[in-house]
Amino acid sequence: MPQKVGVILSGCGVLDGAEIHESVLTLLALDRSGAEAVCMSPNKDQRDVVNHLTNQPMRGEKRNVLIEAARIARGKIRDIKEIHAKDIDAVILPGGYGAAKNLSDYAVKGADCEVDPEVSRLLREMTAAKKPIGAICISPVVLAKAMQVDGAVHPTLTIGCDRGVAGDLQKMGSSHQECPVQEFVVDKENKIVTTPAYMLGPGIKEVAQGIEKLVKAVLALIS
Amino acid sequence: MPQKVGVILSGCGVLDGAEIHESVLTLLALDRSGAEAVCMSPNKDQRDVVNHLTNQPMRGEKRNVLIEAARIARGKIRDIKEIHAKDIDAVILPGGYGAAKNLSDYAVKGADCEVDPEVSRLLREMTAAKKPIGAICISPVVLAKAMQVDGAVHPTLTIGCDRGVAGDLQKMGSSHQECPVQEFVVDKENKIVTTPAYMLGPGIKEVAQGIEKLVKAVLALIS
Repeated sequence: MPQKVGVILSGCGVLDGAEIHESVLTLLALDRSGAEAVCMSPNKDQRDVVNHLTNQPMRGEKRNVLIEAARIARGKIRDIKEIHAKDIDAVILPGGYGAAKNLSDYAVKGADCEVDPEVSRLLREMTAAKKPIGAICISPVVLAKAMQVDGAVHPTLTIGCDRGVAGDLQKMGSSHQECPVQEFVVDKENKIVTTPAYMLGPGIKEVAQGIEKLVKAVLALIS
Repeated sequence: MPQKVGVILSGCGVLDGAEIHESVLTLLALDRSGAEAVCMSPNKDQRDVVNHLTNQPMRGEKRNVLIEAARIARGKIRDIKEIHAKDIDAVILPGGYGAAKNLSDYAVKGADCEVDPEVSRLLREMTAAKKPIGAICISPVVLAKAMQVDGAVHPTLTIGCDRGVAGDLQKMGSSHQECPVQEFVVDKENKIVTTPAYMLGPGIKEVAQGIEKLVKAVLALIS
């Protein structure tokens, strides 16, 4: 039986959803490792829709997180509310502003943010079941806040070297460790792996290196 | 100076735009080869918008090919009308229904299709300048029709083993050669390289193998 790894997508596009390169590189690394990806998303409207050519909001336009994320997953995706820790061996969150707009409201509220209830539930189920979690780019903020709710887990995470976001992670009860884009940080005790990806850039080949290593580290932490 | 390779995107999502995995894998292989990707799209409305969760059209919804493709390109994309053969060393077309709906109307008219005028112009400029072209998945139909206009170039192409599409390629003056997903077909005389990708599947790791080989073959054909 292949290892089943949940991939929580937050839409389709770096400015209002899941970062597309990070998501596809995660699916590639999982497939190359012989693992099965179980893509999932919250089934709700995106916080906003952004024109990726001009970086301006497309006012009046509405898009659904799950329906847009289905573009990355080629239709093979489920509503996150149907997925429980017993269904998967690990879970990975790619980045993109969708993590800070749709999986949480970090983009608006910073360290005082709330996490989408179904995302929070699944992440807390995973840590309770001692199953590994990977978080890429900005998505460690989602994980830090979800862990803060119960207060039992204080993960060590990286988002690269952004001092503002690192400070917010600390406010949310996590520790921050600086890390270059090609590398990753592993918190063995809590089975949590993070890599900075496009928080640092500079390009897709460096981001791919970090994500490949993260996926291998996550799979190695599966009991 | 790095080699500059145009990447013609046709939107963002397999059912109404560029196949996302094929597009990202192309950008990854180019970056890993030290080449610079020059992403471009026609600046016009998509033929349609499809819900990738249900596979049903989202009637009444309009999206612009260039603006949606900018999601894959992380905003670094240009209107194809600004790009000429002198600006790039090679060009690659990822697949997805966008090739058959937005770069051409093959999805509706089959072998009697027309190619978007700016796409046709650039492809014909490239062959006239003896610069290589790569075409992935269903996009060889765009290339076959563009080449049929002048009638001077009769490429050998692959779309895998779909007999219906292979027959259409022949009606449009091209030859078809069957090919497995991990491989590619090279027409050295015309400097054209093709690989079946998701015309065959079965998954992202096999598609990646074919695209990596296609990108290397395209770069090797640059004079």
